[in-house]
Amino acid sequence: MDLDKRILNGDKRACARLITMVENNEKEGIDIVKKIYKHSGNAHVIGITGPPGGGKSTLTDKLAKELRKRGKKVGIIAVDPTSPFSGGSILGDRIRMQDLATDPGVFIRSMGTRGNLGGLSKSTQSAIKILDVYGADYIFVETVGVGQSEVDIVKTVDTVVMIMVPGLGDDIQAIKAGVMEIGDVFAVNKSDLDGADKTALELEMMLDMGFKEDKKPKVLKVSSSKNEGVSTLLDEVISHMDYMIDTDKLQKRREENAKVEILNLVEEEIMQMVLGKTKTGQLLDEVSKKTALRKTNPYDGKDIIVKSIKE
Amino acid sequence: MDLDKRILNGDKRACARLITMVENNEKEGIDIVKKIYKHSGNAHVIGITGPPGGGKSTLTDKLAKELRKRGKKVGIIAVDPTSPFSGGSILGDRIRMQDLATDPGVFIRSMGTRGNLGGLSKSTQSAIKILDVYGADYIFVETVGVGQSEVDIVKTVDTVVMIMVPGLGDDIQAIKAGVMEIGDVFAVNKSDLDGADKTALELEMMLDMGFKEDKKPKVLKVSSSKNEGVSTLLDEVISHMDYMIDTDKLQKRREENAKVEILNLVEEEIMQMVLGKTKTGQLLDEVSKKTALRKTNPYDGKDIIVKSIKE
Repeated sequence: MDLDKRILNGDKRACARLITMVENNEKEGIDIVKKIYKHSGNAHVIGITGPPGGGKSTLTDKLAKELRKRGKKVGIIAVDPTSPFSGGSILGDRIRMQDLATDPGVFIRSMGTRGNLGGLSKSTQSAIKILDVYGADYIFVETVGVGQSEVDIVKTVDTVVMIMVPGLGDDIQAIKAGVMEIGDVFAVNKSDLDGADKTALELEMMLDMGFKEDKKPKVLKVSSSKNEGVSTLLDEVISHMDYMIDTDKLQKRREENAKVEILNLVEEEIMQMVLGKTKTGQLLDEVSKKTALRKTNPYDGKDIIVKSIKE
Repeated sequence: MDLDKRILNGDKRACARLITMVENNEKEGIDIVKKIYKHSGNAHVIGITGPPGGGKSTLTDKLAKELRKRGKKVGIIAVDPTSPFSGGSILGDRIRMQDLATDPGVFIRSMGTRGNLGGLSKSTQSAIKILDVYGADYIFVETVGVGQSEVDIVKTVDTVVMIMVPGLGDDIQAIKAGVMEIGDVFAVNKSDLDGADKTALELEMMLDMGFKEDKKPKVLKVSSSKNEGVSTLLDEVISHMDYMIDTDKLQKRREENAKVEILNLVEEEIMQMVLGKTKTGQLLDEVSKKTALRKTNPYDGKDIIVKSIKE
């Protein structure tokens, strides 16, 4: 059977195969994604993000298990943009709880930069759509919430769960502030630790200052290792989706997400044009050399490259 | 006197003024940067990066003070790309040691996304060149080394000092692996903590696996708070520059840096074209809407936008 039909029939191996094709930037794979795209849009896509050491993986696993109890199909995409060569993603897959990985109603995939010729953002976006067509009711996209590329990835979901933990240093707090605006639901994990109440209170206070235009995000305490508060957190995540549907905000949000996705593809194509063995690529080498020698400057160099792209 | 002449004369206030103009994306400011660009290239530009909580600011301050003792002029640019609205940068400036800030031979500037209309990367690059022309012998660019945008910024320097600290969690270790390849000198900070020797040893082992083509980076133990090992670290940083000059690698590296800088400017211009109130901007809105409704897909949408950019 064709790959697209197999995915529509809920074939996990076909999903894995197509994601790999997109990662390898194979035209055939991308053509299949284009073909099945119209069948996507049914899953609730949930971003899980937070500082390093926040317990994202464990919490995602617990949420997935809770959804399985409720009879739902689940996809998990663990994104690790910080590992260009560490092989961390592969390791991550192995560490993940075996019971989830062998559950026929759960599809787990780790994605890193390594071997990802198609670009991490493109592969992640396509993987979401593939799991959507595969029939996942809920898809988790899990990533460290620290840099712009991570924020870009987690932005293109329906609901962002921002994980916080008590007692991290000042630098972490700064990171928290930087990405706080993208959170729809806040989970203070490791709620058994000292300082959890204080962290939750601080969060409430920051949110009272009004980062969000409309609905003030809820702050919930959870302990993923002890499996406390997970079901309540899940209810709140689902409630955020209901809210968006009821208020007609979902379409607007998905338009914004599509915009980010298209822009990433545009950027990728232009970068290939500029960095490849093309006329523009040669020009870039020349102006970079002249700039380094101070015979020109980056701004005039930029003008030359933009002109060449347009030709 | 004109701003460019004042900067060439070592006027700190003129530097601050021009950096602000670039941050505000004022054409006049960028024209001045273009004009003075040919006078840059004399400073040794040093990137200071590492995980959150690694003690980057303190170490940078100590290195700057050591250089002042040696009679050198110093520029410090503290980049905080994770703070789009927290005002962390302003706070950071105030927290910085007052004795450095009031030293006429030291220029300190914090840069964040907030109010940075010119784009953080562009502003940072221009600030480096401005401080270079101002007469700084050494310029530190300090940033959290966790995401792609941070790595992009710290990449465009002559020498990257990667700070490590003992006893961070697994996620941090993954981040470390992700950015390790860009380090020219490694500093294990907080060397008085348990585990510092182990961290240094692990680093040595990873570096033995050969991330670098040529010179294996040195691993040095420092304690920035106790001011131990700072002078030796500085000597090693200077020795890295000597090595690049002696082996003719500096020009090649600066060409690569110029390439990244030009590409960032190209990207910015194209994004302005696509996201502005332009024909392409309108097209993007349309295809994003259709994509969200699954009437088209992001790949066909991308083709339409790229065609429009070229027109």
